[in-house]
Amino acid sequence: MPTYKAPVREFMFLYRNVLHVDRHSNLPAFAEAPLDLVEQILGEGAKFCENVLQPLNAVGDHEGCKRSPDGSVTTPTGFKDAYRQLVDGGWPALGADPVYGGQGLPHVVSLAWNEMVSSANMAFGMYPGLSHGAYEAIHHHGSDAQKDMYLPKLVTGEWTGTMNLTEPHCGTDLGLLRTKAVPQGDGSYKISGQKIFISAGEHDLAENIIHLVIARIEGAPAGTKGISLFIVPKFLVNADGSLGARNGVVCGKIEEKMGIHGNATCVMQYEDAVGHLIGEPNKGLAVMFVMMNEARLGVGLQGVAQAEGAYQAALAFAKDRRQGRSLTGPKEPDQPADSILVHPDVRRMLMDIKSVTEGGRAFLFWTALYGDLLHKSPDPAVREKAGDYMALMTPVLKGFLTDRGYANATNCQQIYGGHGYIEEWGMSQFVRDARIAQIYEGANGIQALDLVGRKLAANGGRAVFTFFNEIDAFIADNADDAQMKPFIDALTSSKAQLQDGTMWLMQNGMSNFDNAGAASHDYLHLFGLTALTYMWALMVKASFDGKKGKPDPFFDAKIAVGRHYIDRVLPDAAAHLAKLKTGAGTVMALPADAF
Amino acid sequence: MPTYKAPVREFMFLYRNVLHVDRHSNLPAFAEAPLDLVEQILGEGAKFCENVLQPLNAVGDHEGCKRSPDGSVTTPTGFKDAYRQLVDGGWPALGADPVYGGQGLPHVVSLAWNEMVSSANMAFGMYPGLSHGAYEAIHHHGSDAQKDMYLPKLVTGEWTGTMNLTEPHCGTDLGLLRTKAVPQGDGSYKISGQKIFISAGEHDLAENIIHLVIARIEGAPAGTKGISLFIVPKFLVNADGSLGARNGVVCGKIEEKMGIHGNATCVMQYEDAVGHLIGEPNKGLAVMFVMMNEARLGVGLQGVAQAEGAYQAALAFAKDRRQGRSLTGPKEPDQPADSILVHPDVRRMLMDIKSVTEGGRAFLFWTALYGDLLHKSPDPAVREKAGDYMALMTPVLKGFLTDRGYANATNCQQIYGGHGYIEEWGMSQFVRDARIAQIYEGANGIQALDLVGRKLAANGGRAVFTFFNEIDAFIADNADDAQMKPFIDALTSSKAQLQDGTMWLMQNGMSNFDNAGAASHDYLHLFGLTALTYMWALMVKASFDGKKGKPDPFFDAKIAVGRHYIDRVLPDAAAHLAKLKTGAGTVMALPADAF
Repeated sequence: MPTYKAPVREFMFLYRNVLHVDRHSNLPAFAEAPLDLVEQILGEGAKFCENVLQPLNAVGDHEGCKRSPDGSVTTPTGFKDAYRQLVDGGWPALGADPVYGGQGLPHVVSLAWNEMVSSANMAFGMYPGLSHGAYEAIHHHGSDAQKDMYLPKLVTGEWTGTMNLTEPHCGTDLGLLRTKAVPQGDGSYKISGQKIFISAGEHDLAENIIHLVIARIEGAPAGTKGISLFIVPKFLVNADGSLGARNGVVCGKIEEKMGIHGNATCVMQYEDAVGHLIGEPNKGLAVMFVMMNEARLGVGLQGVAQAEGAYQAALAFAKDRRQGRSLTGPKEPDQPADSILVHPDVRRMLMDIKSVTEGGRAFLFWTALYGDLLHKSPDPAVREKAGDYMALMTPVLKGFLTDRGYANATNCQQIYGGHGYIEEWGMSQFVRDARIAQIYEGANGIQALDLVGRKLAANGGRAVFTFFNEIDAFIADNADDAQMKPFIDALTSSKAQLQDGTMWLMQNGMSNFDNAGAASHDYLHLFGLTALTYMWALMVKASFDGKKGKPDPFFDAKIAVGRHYIDRVLPDAAAHLAKLKTGAGTVMALPADAF
Repeated sequence: MPTYKAPVREFMFLYRNVLHVDRHSNLPAFAEAPLDLVEQILGEGAKFCENVLQPLNAVGDHEGCKRSPDGSVTTPTGFKDAYRQLVDGGWPALGADPVYGGQGLPHVVSLAWNEMVSSANMAFGMYPGLSHGAYEAIHHHGSDAQKDMYLPKLVTGEWTGTMNLTEPHCGTDLGLLRTKAVPQGDGSYKISGQKIFISAGEHDLAENIIHLVIARIEGAPAGTKGISLFIVPKFLVNADGSLGARNGVVCGKIEEKMGIHGNATCVMQYEDAVGHLIGEPNKGLAVMFVMMNEARLGVGLQGVAQAEGAYQAALAFAKDRRQGRSLTGPKEPDQPADSILVHPDVRRMLMDIKSVTEGGRAFLFWTALYGDLLHKSPDPAVREKAGDYMALMTPVLKGFLTDRGYANATNCQQIYGGHGYIEEWGMSQFVRDARIAQIYEGANGIQALDLVGRKLAANGGRAVFTFFNEIDAFIADNADDAQMKPFIDALTSSKAQLQDGTMWLMQNGMSNFDNAGAASHDYLHLFGLTALTYMWALMVKASFDGKKGKPDPFFDAKIAVGRHYIDRVLPDAAAHLAKLKTGAGTVMALPADAF
């Protein structure tokens, strides 16, 4: 069975050497999080993930969640106890507002915790993960009374939260939704309808569940202009904070899924459930969209986290399993065979995965830091750039890193050979769990459309041009550094490819929107590959700098892996560029009945 | 739930318009199979697959196989009855030798039957599929007495067969095997040992199971030079063909797998089981290798078959599911939303899958025809070319088509959005079933190594140069055909890329074998992409020719899909070429302890 060792050194390398998080210690949140303390916190978190959550990963996959006829749901053996330990340890509060009991750490720090949880046990991690989404919605858009009533217990984790969007006939196209909200005259509403695919919709981990539900107020406009967001607690909450009556919401079914079995994916039935409006009527979708950046970044993180977990297992297997001999002669002649790590094709997969996982993690953390600056920086110019980057990078992080995460988990399974296909070895679970990240929180096709249809064009393309300028400046700054030459060369051509694709889209996407749609997937991947080239250039530069202080094989490995990324992963960018420039052409050529 | 409609028109297009199978009607087997008869047979087979096997596909996935404490195994509900119908219909005999009761049809014809079975129910199809492997081994290498004893009932399907190679500590590296064979002095042996991952190892479908087992005769050399192949029937067979005593072989366990749940993957325990040597002592591996070409081609077929089944389901969903509006304005304004087939990114996926599935099928059938010519042609030059092609193309078909099949099944699941992740919609099964084809019958990394390490270099590269010459001749023949220009241009540059990669390997793979190993995966995919370019050129030419006779949207669609392949799939070839030319470089750079 796979084990897991949290990559705390990797996190600290990003914080200390690459992102220089300490340079922001003048800002709130950062001031409370000196890096030595962060390292200590993550070290404690690592132990919890390694020793408590990871051993339950296979249990959750095997047992799944069980629904009783009364609609109650039992989580897998051990989840309840682990969740209690999670709450006792104060972990859900890590990134939350101190006003409501949170520890107020920067997002870029809590992200490392989230990655560890997700690598150790993705299905478990979704319970606090969804709570955080509900916390964000109420924190950003709730009234003071709502904040006071719901946030403290969401922050501690005593209560959990959910997001209720999808209905059987509508997922992407939420304008079609039918769940209705009837005003009761006292400021409350009665909510009725059916929601599906509700992660953590019902369970036995917490004493209350705060459902956030989108619905249409009776008489509201059709389509997306008539959608409102409601708080619908499982148990009504009395004014003194104690739990009141059971609300009219019940889990009607648990879905049998391909993976993340430890998380209850529920069909939720609302029948005259008492709900309270968040924000203004008919503005529910706008509220949801505000929260989506962070949620989608969290899903991109799951892609990296699953690849990391699977990589660790595959590497251990590759060192342990002996089959055949090195092509260049036996490496361990006293053994009956060499370990399969000697085989170039096994190494190819491991290096591909390692370079994308480490590059992807850097891209996530780099973006998350802008997320913090967006909220904390006193400088409007910094906040503008940070907001631009968060908006632009989010669909790329979500789509690119989850597509690669799935492919990488699959390759980790491949390294196990036949054993990879047998459930008890644990590799199938990585693949099956990673698969959902490409689908939920906006399927990756929707991410691509968001990127080319909204994010790219916003403010006349300001965000992407800022990014190009930043890369150009880095190239100029390092033009004379001989050690950096391969990386600067790669970054120069990689950025030129992305610019080429961007220009093509700007010229052809407006005249025929189908060109933009047909190019969107390849553009997203071209963008992701280019961003990782930049991340590797930053990491390699930090590694050369780090070596100056003290020789360390860690830095040498970083440089070697970065080089592999350039030689072996980046060539895909040219293929994506070539494809996207064919636009709608052959994609739309076939009449529907000729398929 | 997915349904399935067998693509008989596609098969007949390949036979009639592309491969011109009727030109071989002077040869045995072909003489008995005029194309009108073939079409009739496949039409009957289609009904059986659509109506009997496909409805059991989900049943098999859900129920799996069950082992009783006595080692007996029960297949899923309905499998036994379906298998009886299969035998009653004479389907297992389709491609078998008439001397032993077979119908003697060419392999290129029985391949279509195999595809239909595999699309409809891959797990079920493996029971007769494995029998065919055992049939081949005995037919090619058994004594006359062995043939008379075992073949007739393998041909009818009254008995099934298995292949027993893998042991817990050895899969790829069979030289490590420990199963031993002790001569009994009467020509028989007693076999003892444990075999794992034995597909169809035990079940309730047939009255006897003929296990083919590799083992080491006591005192035989270590390594691959001491491996022999044995027939070990579940029930000993008396001289009169009746069943005798139960042999010392039992299923010790059924593996819980990611997919193909309907097929029993068994741990087989041999304890003093009576076995009979096939062929010469210590030559077992050579016997196995002879059979592997056809078996591996069959696995490549599974990649295509799963993609085809998943594609049909995804297309039906895309036509049925309504979400959002076309980017170029509503296409069905009277409906609440357009069908998602209007969205370019959905079409991109469908067209990618369609172009690779149809191209892959053509590549399989084209190669299988050479397999027939290898055995049937009276012309030594034809047989030499056919043998060269079979050897060269087999690892490409297996590796390329199963990698693409899995990716395509995944994209079909993606088109379903959230529903794709829910088991009851049936898309997860396609992905989970398709996954095994990349792993078994030699993991795809082994295919790549077989290609660059053995097949490419054999006879001074004769096979690949013959292939290049054939492509050059086609290009020359069609240079003046204006309609063909885009395809001839693509084929010219695609073939140049493959030639470039081939030369690089010949120059760099010998000086450092790790270069060959590190390049192998990308070379295999470059080869597959180039081969499909040639297949599309052949199919498009046949379609232009077909249109001359009578306008038919079938031919127009073929040309459009071929064009999509060139624009949207083929660009990957350049990426593979760029990667492979970096050789062992970064792949082998990292010390083992720096991973």
